[in-house]
Amino acid sequence: MLVFQLDSWSSKRLEQVERALERWVTADVSPGCVHAAPAALVEAMRYAVLDGGKRLRPLLVLAAHEAVAPDSSLCAEAALRAACAVELIHAYSLVHDDMPCMDNDVLRRGKPTVHVRFGEASALLAGDALQALAFELLTPEGDAVQPLLQARLCSLLARAAGSAGMAGGQAIDLASVGHTLTEAELREMHQLKTGALLQGSVMMGASCGTPDARALAALQDYGAAMGLAFQVVDDILDVIADSSTLGKTAGKDADNDKPTYVSLMGLAPSQAYAQDLLAQAHQALQRSGLANTRALAALADMVVNRAH
Amino acid sequence: MLVFQLDSWSSKRLEQVERALERWVTADVSPGCVHAAPAALVEAMRYAVLDGGKRLRPLLVLAAHEAVAPDSSLCAEAALRAACAVELIHAYSLVHDDMPCMDNDVLRRGKPTVHVRFGEASALLAGDALQALAFELLTPEGDAVQPLLQARLCSLLARAAGSAGMAGGQAIDLASVGHTLTEAELREMHQLKTGALLQGSVMMGASCGTPDARALAALQDYGAAMGLAFQVVDDILDVIADSSTLGKTAGKDADNDKPTYVSLMGLAPSQAYAQDLLAQAHQALQRSGLANTRALAALADMVVNRAH
Repeated sequence: MLVFQLDSWSSKRLEQVERALERWVTADVSPGCVHAAPAALVEAMRYAVLDGGKRLRPLLVLAAHEAVAPDSSLCAEAALRAACAVELIHAYSLVHDDMPCMDNDVLRRGKPTVHVRFGEASALLAGDALQALAFELLTPEGDAVQPLLQARLCSLLARAAGSAGMAGGQAIDLASVGHTLTEAELREMHQLKTGALLQGSVMMGASCGTPDARALAALQDYGAAMGLAFQVVDDILDVIADSSTLGKTAGKDADNDKPTYVSLMGLAPSQAYAQDLLAQAHQALQRSGLANTRALAALADMVVNRAH
Repeated sequence: MLVFQLDSWSSKRLEQVERALERWVTADVSPGCVHAAPAALVEAMRYAVLDGGKRLRPLLVLAAHEAVAPDSSLCAEAALRAACAVELIHAYSLVHDDMPCMDNDVLRRGKPTVHVRFGEASALLAGDALQALAFELLTPEGDAVQPLLQARLCSLLARAAGSAGMAGGQAIDLASVGHTLTEAELREMHQLKTGALLQGSVMMGASCGTPDARALAALQDYGAAMGLAFQVVDDILDVIADSSTLGKTAGKDADNDKPTYVSLMGLAPSQAYAQDLLAQAHQALQRSGLANTRALAALADMVVNRAH
């Protein structure tokens, strides 16, 4: 068996994702719209989205799709749209999260944050419009994506992003500053804040194929373990990495008196927990009965062993 | 022919809408979600939504649905969900619009605005979560709404709310402060800012039935004329009404140096223009060939002749 090269696998998919985002986040009058979006708003939206980032969520969508539809060597239109839609939700959450009333961060991926560059009001609106655009991408005119699948993808994305998902997790995060959380509370917060959209990415990708019930349940478990691992590692990196490696301000959690896995469990137990979650993710993939899970496995490895 | 009683028609529909919003904007674990939404976030969301308001958009959805499906004396589940979804989008836009970085308004419907009551960060997140919840409502598990219709409703709502719709209009509004706009520019701004969601409400309601192409085109024209009339009248009321009648701060447009129809055309010509748009809305309904357009007609009258 050939060794799986994540870099090579990723770079082809990232090229597709970047091209698609470039094409879909524009001021062009899109099918189904009478008016063009104003240029200034679109500029802020593009600044928020088209500046790199790891694109982990789009890669998870595409890897999950390939796991359930192994013949498709190219990305199906639906999976590519889903990949971009989750990235737009992620991008909007960063824009709003960086605002002065939230984390008040001025640096993101080594660049001024959106509100620093465009002003707070524009950042607010750009985030709002990115969320709507995510659902526009999932519901194209014509027959590029079957209506049943459009509905399913919208359902998954809305729930991953909403009050019982990402936005809910951010609200718990906000309320938890200066408080001591139990491990169960910390896990709940992270499952919503980061886990829901990561797991949602996997489920959206899987929905673009035809997994059986066993595979779907296993992918859900994979998404849960990998999503939580991502956040545990984030907590660890905030302590051990420096700002230039992270591309954002390091040590913010402690400065902001935010509860983290490291503050709750200590550094070494957090690192052990991350490895345990990684093992759970791999076990879930083995349970899935799917043949082509190498990209999902490699992405989980990357999430846990990353340096930023 | 009996005289159509809008009050009586509305009160029955409003009761359904209020009950549905009460039921759907909750912290309960909804089907398709593993986690419950945090109570503090849901409290802010409910404060933003369940405080009255005219519910014009839900009524437009239901009136359009009844126009194309005259046998349905009760609201179909899909139309009721669409009615609530547009109201959630409207509510989120008010929450964000009132924030200090936007209009900085402290009073809304006679009550403290969401950020005054709950803080800016919670207002930001509540608005974000309300937008996601709108799409959750449109994509229920099970067979309450056919997948084809779910996809259609999500498509219409996303485009009405997004960068070529409401959010785009707000961005133009923001950029226009202190500038002189031509009438065409002012119309474009209002068509996006307010018109898109009002027109979208009509089209979402119509999509819940089976209108023919002529009816659909006519309803689109109705929505465009009525939506623009709404904003012209809003501009007029900002000048001639007082804050206690409006339930929000009067005279803000002039104070903020915002271009309006009144500042561009003068008061009397603006009033004449509103009546002209009302006539266009009525003509469109006549063109539709639909029998049961009395609620739509009465809602247009109400929009133009309202005192607040």
